[in-house]
Amino acid sequence: MISAFETYLHTHAGLTGEEINRISSAATARSIRRNELILQEGQVCRHKTFLVSGLLRTYGIVADGSEHILQFASENTWTLDAESYDHQKPTLFNIAAVERSELLQWTKPAFDRLLLEIPALKAFSEQLIANSNHRSRQRLFTSLSATPEEKYEDFVRLFPDLLARLPLHMIAAYLGISLKTLTRIRHAQLKR
Amino acid sequence: MISAFETYLHTHAGLTGEEINRISSAATARSIRRNELILQEGQVCRHKTFLVSGLLRTYGIVADGSEHILQFASENTWTLDAESYDHQKPTLFNIAAVERSELLQWTKPAFDRLLLEIPALKAFSEQLIANSNHRSRQRLFTSLSATPEEKYEDFVRLFPDLLARLPLHMIAAYLGISLKTLTRIRHAQLKR
Repeated sequence: MISAFETYLHTHAGLTGEEINRISSAATARSIRRNELILQEGQVCRHKTFLVSGLLRTYGIVADGSEHILQFASENTWTLDAESYDHQKPTLFNIAAVERSELLQWTKPAFDRLLLEIPALKAFSEQLIANSNHRSRQRLFTSLSATPEEKYEDFVRLFPDLLARLPLHMIAAYLGISLKTLTRIRHAQLKR
Repeated sequence: MISAFETYLHTHAGLTGEEINRISSAATARSIRRNELILQEGQVCRHKTFLVSGLLRTYGIVADGSEHILQFASENTWTLDAESYDHQKPTLFNIAAVERSELLQWTKPAFDRLLLEIPALKAFSEQLIANSNHRSRQRLFTSLSATPEEKYEDFVRLFPDLLARLPLHMIAAYLGISLKTLTRIRHAQLKR
């Protein structure tokens, strides 16, 4: 599990072998089953999580019981609830496994220490945060401006590998459209 | 104009007087009229902008000609298109004045130099970026999960001071609802 993470860091972050060792030796490896939660509404997000394999979703549940999905995280990406993690305050969201997943996790104090000690990790981390912001902004714009058809096409274009791994109701909950609308869109596309 | 900015930095950023001087002397002051653009779709976002007074909106226009608003920025806040600024590539969005506004602007090279030279400015800037992310995530969740009524109530709660300064069609374009729906919601609230 560690070796996949080390390959990722080596490829993306421009860190030395010694730095990569320090980062991975501060992590705890964890396997979770499908549907298992790593963060639950009301808890404090105490870890930064790197996904070695599998698929997670971050979602919130509103008063009528419906689930709305903020994010999917798959292999070689990071996930956390940033607001809860940064301020160590209770989260409004949940993070759960869509598939059986292998994770590496760092506590906030351990990761903060690594960021202080390894300037290249700090720079890499800032770049990941910036990219995540750019994507959020783009997603917000799509959410405000696009038709349901355009939202689905956008999803297919951005996440072709996730299509077969997600139940339709989760794709609908991510796009902010009803399952009925999504089914209609897919049916119309198949007929073309 | 500079003195309002210096008061802001003094109150929020924990910088020394000498640091504040260096930051403000690197800025260019600019006044813009209502409806004037400081960034237009297709241009590169070359400046970080601090709003001393007035009101700006960041928006995109889609194929059918409709405008969708990502953000309002009022006194004592910063604005830019981060993706265009970070990568110095053409933006998909526009930033225009809703009211006559007074701005301070830094070029990216000048601001990058300040961030390198003044660690407390770097820390403050990271905190602003983090807060902006937390708000975007919350807004995305509202956009996915809330009813039009809840979206409007959320706006009133978060931006009570903007209500009287914005035409209704802009509030609708920010909430991702039609002007007709917004008018109906406001009418129903007045009758209560």
